[in-house]
Amino acid sequence: MTKQELFSIIKRKKSFLCVGLDTDITKIPKHLLNTEDPIFEFNKQIIDATHDICVAYKPNVAFYETQGSKGWISLEKTINYITKTYKDIFTIADAKRGDIGNTSAMYAKAFLEKLNFDSITVAPYMGEDSVTPFLEHKNKWVILLALTSNKGAFDFQTNEMASLFENEKGQRLFEKVLTTSKKWGTPDNMMYVVGATKAEMLVDIRKLVPDNFLLVPGVGVQGGSLHDVAKYGMNKQCGLLVNSSRGIIYAGIENDFADKARKEALILQSEMEKLLENYL
Amino acid sequence: MTKQELFSIIKRKKSFLCVGLDTDITKIPKHLLNTEDPIFEFNKQIIDATHDICVAYKPNVAFYETQGSKGWISLEKTINYITKTYKDIFTIADAKRGDIGNTSAMYAKAFLEKLNFDSITVAPYMGEDSVTPFLEHKNKWVILLALTSNKGAFDFQTNEMASLFENEKGQRLFEKVLTTSKKWGTPDNMMYVVGATKAEMLVDIRKLVPDNFLLVPGVGVQGGSLHDVAKYGMNKQCGLLVNSSRGIIYAGIENDFADKARKEALILQSEMEKLLENYL
Repeated sequence: MTKQELFSIIKRKKSFLCVGLDTDITKIPKHLLNTEDPIFEFNKQIIDATHDICVAYKPNVAFYETQGSKGWISLEKTINYITKTYKDIFTIADAKRGDIGNTSAMYAKAFLEKLNFDSITVAPYMGEDSVTPFLEHKNKWVILLALTSNKGAFDFQTNEMASLFENEKGQRLFEKVLTTSKKWGTPDNMMYVVGATKAEMLVDIRKLVPDNFLLVPGVGVQGGSLHDVAKYGMNKQCGLLVNSSRGIIYAGIENDFADKARKEALILQSEMEKLLENYL
Repeated sequence: MTKQELFSIIKRKKSFLCVGLDTDITKIPKHLLNTEDPIFEFNKQIIDATHDICVAYKPNVAFYETQGSKGWISLEKTINYITKTYKDIFTIADAKRGDIGNTSAMYAKAFLEKLNFDSITVAPYMGEDSVTPFLEHKNKWVILLALTSNKGAFDFQTNEMASLFENEKGQRLFEKVLTTSKKWGTPDNMMYVVGATKAEMLVDIRKLVPDNFLLVPGVGVQGGSLHDVAKYGMNKQCGLLVNSSRGIIYAGIENDFADKARKEALILQSEMEKLLENYL
């Protein structure tokens, strides 16, 4: 999917919501456990109930791998269902991969070709040759970790780097990641993960990457504010995909869980509609 | 596996060799393609031919994921075969995972419980709560990326951090990762990845983590020197697992590929035997 196509979908749906399919077999409604593939069945119903009010789905691969090869089958069925049923959805493999060049090429093939996701989250620690193999896939996206939503983000990401010139404040590591990685891709194939729990830092981040889309987790259970994210992070093409996982998909645990999920998603979507009107 | 058990195996086998099972379906001998599970069949023969002269196997998960759920089945069969057939092998899931706490806990369950690997490689970018869930599994290990063997290691890992005191040289990022993460675990549940291509840096690294085992990729195809790694990196309990993947597993591409792999592994093992005599 191109950036222009993504922006068109955002405008049409009046939403920049990404639903995180962090599907945990121990948390889904009990009546689904009798179906052939409970995880896929859960995802399918969530997707059917929310596809018109969100623009992206993001399965976190950990939740599938914890079920072994069976979980991978659920993941394959989920992505196939999305891409075959709904044409106006951006798909994100939240995999946080990254390895030496020839190995990253394998991950790229796994997620962007074989599973045919539009994008994959990638960790920057191993540098350029760990990221560029993902960028070689046409109309696919790398979503690079910059400033994550968790407490551990303060261990390294916000640490200041040595400055090249005396009397000059150095960049923080996440800023160094942004300025360095900008040269590897373009705003048409590179997005960044920035946690909503650090919304005020979006001001500094937008100075460095004004045109890139940002994937923003941390609204909802993790405590980030949607309003602040839009205020500090939105650009002329929206430039935001705001993710909510647990707050939406576990809104209900009975037969009507999908309706409840839709209601939660609608609350976020209607806020987003207003924010798009205000800031676009 | 405990550190003491690992050291005992190293002394008995006179080897600190780790064989990387980076099994690429396009590179394995053609006659295996007719078997039910060519990747597992290849691994099984490599393992049977080398288990007495190496101490660890390290499947890189990317090579399995590139085959989708089928690849995960090959991975499951491989780890099951190793753990059930050979008791004196340390197993490493080279997965380079790392996510927010509740998600890292899922990866930990996937690799350390369900697949029952002894250890998993983890990326440090997301900090403490992305790493500690792996450390909660008894007698299991985190192998944290510190200084990797690829060119991209120079993009961020070797960058100098701001020093706390003027006139004092700052740590490099990989040194900051070592000093910070040391507090999360102990030499009994934490190892570090240090590329053999940067062997001279092992001197600095040993000052910071004298007692931890180091997993050292990059000997062989990537050009690192085994002699230098031992000279600068060995400690009193050996403290090294040196990995070779392509150089061993693709030594032959005919019916006798496993014999050829053994021959290559033996060359490294006999060098290692001498190095253990010299430095232990």
